[in-house]
Amino acid sequence: MGDKKKNSAESDLMQKIVGLCKRRGFVFQSSEIYGGLKSAYDYGPLGVELKRNVMAEWWRSMVHEREDVVGLDASIIMSPKVWQASGHVGGFSDPLVDCKDCKTRFRADKAPVVEKGAEVKYRAQGKTVTGVANQPYVCPECGSPNLSEEREFNLLFKTNLGPVDTGDSTVYLRPETAQAMFVNFLNVQSTYRLKPPFGIAQQGKSFRNEITVEHFIFRSCEFEQMEMEYFCPPEEAPNWLDYWKQERFDWYVRLGCKKENLRLRAHEDDELAHYADGCYDVEYKYPWGWDELEGIANRTNYDLKKHQEASGKKLTYFDPVKINPETGKQGVHYLPYVIEPAAGATRTVLMFLLDAYDEEPPSEGRKDGRVVLRLHPRLAPIKVALLPLVKKDEWLTGKAREIVKDFLRNGINAFYDEKDAIGRRYARQDEAGTPFCITVDGQTKEDGTVTIRYRDDMRQDRIKLEEAVHIVTSKIRE
Amino acid sequence: MGDKKKNSAESDLMQKIVGLCKRRGFVFQSSEIYGGLKSAYDYGPLGVELKRNVMAEWWRSMVHEREDVVGLDASIIMSPKVWQASGHVGGFSDPLVDCKDCKTRFRADKAPVVEKGAEVKYRAQGKTVTGVANQPYVCPECGSPNLSEEREFNLLFKTNLGPVDTGDSTVYLRPETAQAMFVNFLNVQSTYRLKPPFGIAQQGKSFRNEITVEHFIFRSCEFEQMEMEYFCPPEEAPNWLDYWKQERFDWYVRLGCKKENLRLRAHEDDELAHYADGCYDVEYKYPWGWDELEGIANRTNYDLKKHQEASGKKLTYFDPVKINPETGKQGVHYLPYVIEPAAGATRTVLMFLLDAYDEEPPSEGRKDGRVVLRLHPRLAPIKVALLPLVKKDEWLTGKAREIVKDFLRNGINAFYDEKDAIGRRYARQDEAGTPFCITVDGQTKEDGTVTIRYRDDMRQDRIKLEEAVHIVTSKIRE
Repeated sequence: MGDKKKNSAESDLMQKIVGLCKRRGFVFQSSEIYGGLKSAYDYGPLGVELKRNVMAEWWRSMVHEREDVVGLDASIIMSPKVWQASGHVGGFSDPLVDCKDCKTRFRADKAPVVEKGAEVKYRAQGKTVTGVANQPYVCPECGSPNLSEEREFNLLFKTNLGPVDTGDSTVYLRPETAQAMFVNFLNVQSTYRLKPPFGIAQQGKSFRNEITVEHFIFRSCEFEQMEMEYFCPPEEAPNWLDYWKQERFDWYVRLGCKKENLRLRAHEDDELAHYADGCYDVEYKYPWGWDELEGIANRTNYDLKKHQEASGKKLTYFDPVKINPETGKQGVHYLPYVIEPAAGATRTVLMFLLDAYDEEPPSEGRKDGRVVLRLHPRLAPIKVALLPLVKKDEWLTGKAREIVKDFLRNGINAFYDEKDAIGRRYARQDEAGTPFCITVDGQTKEDGTVTIRYRDDMRQDRIKLEEAVHIVTSKIRE
Repeated sequence: MGDKKKNSAESDLMQKIVGLCKRRGFVFQSSEIYGGLKSAYDYGPLGVELKRNVMAEWWRSMVHEREDVVGLDASIIMSPKVWQASGHVGGFSDPLVDCKDCKTRFRADKAPVVEKGAEVKYRAQGKTVTGVANQPYVCPECGSPNLSEEREFNLLFKTNLGPVDTGDSTVYLRPETAQAMFVNFLNVQSTYRLKPPFGIAQQGKSFRNEITVEHFIFRSCEFEQMEMEYFCPPEEAPNWLDYWKQERFDWYVRLGCKKENLRLRAHEDDELAHYADGCYDVEYKYPWGWDELEGIANRTNYDLKKHQEASGKKLTYFDPVKINPETGKQGVHYLPYVIEPAAGATRTVLMFLLDAYDEEPPSEGRKDGRVVLRLHPRLAPIKVALLPLVKKDEWLTGKAREIVKDFLRNGINAFYDEKDAIGRRYARQDEAGTPFCITVDGQTKEDGTVTIRYRDDMRQDRIKLEEAVHIVTSKIRE
């Protein structure tokens, strides 16, 4: 019972987030007027700003603020040889099973577990019947144990480049951004004259033909990644894995994610990808339980080695100072090891929405409760809303619009709103996560002051108009 | 002769740009270690920053600085019904022809024109032979007039969503971002409570299975767009077309593109797309001649009407004030007209590289010439380089690194370089388009001043260290 209650509270929160996203224009179902498309989502006016802010913060902390990391933006359709070498064409697959009763196709590793050979009760054609499980799981839709054999289904999206649909024009949509960094390793290293340890970072869309898409934008076939490959001398890899797992954990905390909802979990040996020598997940306490936000793995030199073999191009780095153990002299060629912090931008957006969502009940002096998104000011889609107290007073509206322009000139996304009573306007901004509201009123005419209202505690201060930009800027930078 | 000379100077410039892009890490051939992939390019450390800056400037001027435009970020794979309704599945095609001699497949509308039935001389199997043109053009490869019939080739990339490659799982990669704005028109309008005229803007990748890819990143199968759909009352459309064509032209000029290399060209009636009532191209004088940079079209209500018909969903806007001509009373439902400024981000990057490229010969007092990219400071990948005069002086290097951090904290992308003589370091930054270099030297220790060197005229000023951030910031904002 306790579990059921918990589950319903959890799905309740997800429903509220999905509802808020649609109502306020964070996230819409894609192609909605045509009945939508499986697990495809469009980011509306507020959502696109939130996602851009999340991705800009990542770029700032991973590329701009570091001397040892540079950026890359590779094409989504790469040479098919890349995916042959990386193992994605051969092995990147899920075990799929068909239910012989309800004809559902599902992923074997996501189905309800039973003992193979056990008697199972399920509903078929309106009756409860009994069957024997021919697999160690049953159909997740109807509970039937009458299942097909498992078969492997490759997750790569295939398409054809060029005018003819022949086999040799087959290309793939990238299932991850990472391989572009391996393939471009030497180009980037040599043009930028970089010396390991150094990183190459990339953001962008990836595509996986997932059978099980779930939890709104958490797992969808088209998604956005933020990945960095950090190339280092092999002996330094364990230390850099430690460094990056902590740095990435701290990034979420710095952007306001509640620490108690985050954890670092080391992969068990049997969970490790075959190429990885150590991996941590940054996990978030989603409404459905702890689940992945980001993986930080020691990929060793697996990828560079594979691409070196497949392309016939030498991908080693030459260190002129390091002692070559074979000759005892300075100068050695080696394949760097790679530490990879790989985050999902779209699921990070979902996480920040969940973590920031708050409902306040009515309280003394305030008869209405409110919904508030306590987003970090750097992430908030709108940083400051300018509200003239009275819509019909042209001096007020003109002044408010002037201040909007002033903010925009300073690179701060400001929003003008004159519709409805001031309380409703505050409520709309609370729900959109806007950290500051500035109200222009009669007193502004007299003494040049305005009211600044803080989203989180609803405190209101009277400040000088000319200080407004400075106050908001420094709060955002804090 | 004059023409040939001109052409060779032009291709010379393209070769220099391609060379610079590769050498300095602006643009690499994609999957280069595997021999590349047709017309696919990856943006290296400098290129990704340049492209991000171009796209950020567009977003700033089109979304953030305007009250009447909001953003959108839709999925690349949309419902196939969107592309059926828009006409892309049925009609989005190029006429293709095969050469019977050299087996080249090419686009009929891009082939060298001859008179049909004319005698044509060409080379086949090592000999010059004569043939009769069976089409009003010849093979662009070998000049042969022995050609197949034309057939239509659809430009949409097809793939399959879900586990089975059956016809009904077919989906397409979007060939333009525009349709997402039409499909989401009402969702965005109602959640943001917008009243025409208003716009929805989007940036992102689009894909066209082009047969003729050309001019480096100018035309490639995978490319990045910056599109805005401006929804307005039908009677206002001509005025808004005028407004937007000028506004978009001015945007390029504001970002430093030379005015003499830009022009606005009205489409002739026979060039107009079937849905358009008026269209202008912003054209740039590329090395191969005037060619498109951006199109600004009056798309009428063609798209909304098509999607309304195909989806069965009403897509009209209700204006409660406007007089309904049928009833003579206030309140009318109508389909807005749409003005669309549609720019290519990737070709805009190429344009800015071409336009900014300059070679200065050696001059009095300077024995070496230089290559300089005169990029607008807002577009420059690196805004400021910090150069300690002497690498071995730890005070200098420490100070320079401190200043780098100070710039980064202020959101200005700074770069530290201590390798090689100062002249070579300046030359590297000139070639990368870095507008400012700051040198820290012995005098800095004594009086706290540094040298700031301006890329364009190589002027050097002595400034106070604490003014550096302010000076650079205000030059960038200018």
